[in-house]
Amino acid sequence: MRQINQFTITDAVKDSFKTEEGSRFKFLLEGFITHLHDYTREVNMTHQEWMGILNFLYDCGKISTPERHEFILLSDVLGFSALVDMLNTRGGATEGSNLGPFYLDDAPILELGADLARGRDGTSLLVHGIVRDSLGNPLPGAIVDTWQADGTGTYPIQEQASGQDKFDLRGKMTANEKGEYYYTTVLPKPYTVPYDGPVGDLLRAGNRHAWRAAHLHYIVRAPGMRAITTELFFENTEYIDNDAVFGVRKSLIAKLEPVKKNEEFAFALETRPDAKCRFDFVLAPEG
Amino acid sequence: MRQINQFTITDAVKDSFKTEEGSRFKFLLEGFITHLHDYTREVNMTHQEWMGILNFLYDCGKISTPERHEFILLSDVLGFSALVDMLNTRGGATEGSNLGPFYLDDAPILELGADLARGRDGTSLLVHGIVRDSLGNPLPGAIVDTWQADGTGTYPIQEQASGQDKFDLRGKMTANEKGEYYYTTVLPKPYTVPYDGPVGDLLRAGNRHAWRAAHLHYIVRAPGMRAITTELFFENTEYIDNDAVFGVRKSLIAKLEPVKKNEEFAFALETRPDAKCRFDFVLAPEG
Repeated sequence: MRQINQFTITDAVKDSFKTEEGSRFKFLLEGFITHLHDYTREVNMTHQEWMGILNFLYDCGKISTPERHEFILLSDVLGFSALVDMLNTRGGATEGSNLGPFYLDDAPILELGADLARGRDGTSLLVHGIVRDSLGNPLPGAIVDTWQADGTGTYPIQEQASGQDKFDLRGKMTANEKGEYYYTTVLPKPYTVPYDGPVGDLLRAGNRHAWRAAHLHYIVRAPGMRAITTELFFENTEYIDNDAVFGVRKSLIAKLEPVKKNEEFAFALETRPDAKCRFDFVLAPEG
Repeated sequence: MRQINQFTITDAVKDSFKTEEGSRFKFLLEGFITHLHDYTREVNMTHQEWMGILNFLYDCGKISTPERHEFILLSDVLGFSALVDMLNTRGGATEGSNLGPFYLDDAPILELGADLARGRDGTSLLVHGIVRDSLGNPLPGAIVDTWQADGTGTYPIQEQASGQDKFDLRGKMTANEKGEYYYTTVLPKPYTVPYDGPVGDLLRAGNRHAWRAAHLHYIVRAPGMRAITTELFFENTEYIDNDAVFGVRKSLIAKLEPVKKNEEFAFALETRPDAKCRFDFVLAPEG
């Protein structure tokens, strides 16, 4: 009979898993067990605290649906998602940021210069830039896939019950022969992550707000290049310094500039914008 | 704008929680954030791995019901539950072990010497001993609350659909004036923890079995003493060296001895047993 105590149990648990020597699974599992046990010992956890943690996870499970993944939200507010995004950013490429829960893979085609806002209330914003590699070479044919909240901070997909089209305020553009993309849209407003569940309780317990800084979502893809999932934020806007999910990076903040009366643009636009911002996407090679 | 990167994000997340300085909540939360982030950095987690972990938790939530708490099971197979039991064992007192999912607070009264088995198939076992404090003083009036699986490894509470009484094979005894408790029951058999869910998938991925060594459950209480929740195991029985939930401690293994023909007992028993074991419970003062 092996003597198991509060120190030897960690190796006993690791040894109980018969995993392939040198495998990634073994590495991930053993690291997790080590940290879980070290944490438990360091805080000298009580039964009440242990049960509190397990019931918190249970409650996260109960409120989750295919449309609401409370564990992703938990990951977001603990900076776990942002950290994984950071670790997976390639040197020289645009920094990654949250995918969030509202991405649809089958968004409609958006022509360059088109207006994604289609008459919605709010500030009309021109977003433009170049998709390029880290040496500065443009990537013609790159796909810029975008989705966003409206001028009240709501995603149309959240308002299908009131008749909104889930494909509104999202679209896929193809960069032109110079790698350029450009379109107008409505300047999005901040919004809160869902805070009516266990993660909301955690935020309240920690005296934290649930607001995200206003942002546009992007996935940018080009053949042979590693796709990037990121967000674009705006200088001097609310919550830019305390985004609830730690999505903001300095390099992802664009400057909002007013469009001057009679200002001319190098490209044809469906709608004349009130403001503009420029952001270039930089992709690193695949593999 | 604070610059957040893969190293500074940990402090940024900690600082986002405005918790009471020096509070237990702050200590628990900051320790958790530190370990979560350190782990993520150490393994250089990919998005796919991150999503795999969050979806695993989602699946644990989906299979959970008030009767099946998959997160407790996960805690059990990772030795988290056992470690918390170990950390909360008082010096000199009987070691703690898993509460498990089948405890009922309102078990019937069991008279000393009664047969809990009530004619069930299997080996009839006498369990007896003294409830005492760490100085050896008996604790008359101590309550020994027990519950267990039957001679096939099944808890009656699991078989209510086939007409079994959930209160069978459980009961509360009061130790006599010498602190003694004694009763006969059926020797329990090993059983598996539920392995048809995500935790079962984890066990299979790690080439682990789901068997628990045979055991009797106990909660022992006495006025002014800290209650203990523990399990009693039997020498040289299956899975005693590799219990799926790490519940076995050397000090919790009793010796099974055959009852000799014409052997006499110091106390009156309802049923003559085939075998016997002795185990003393030691309680430490409350607070």
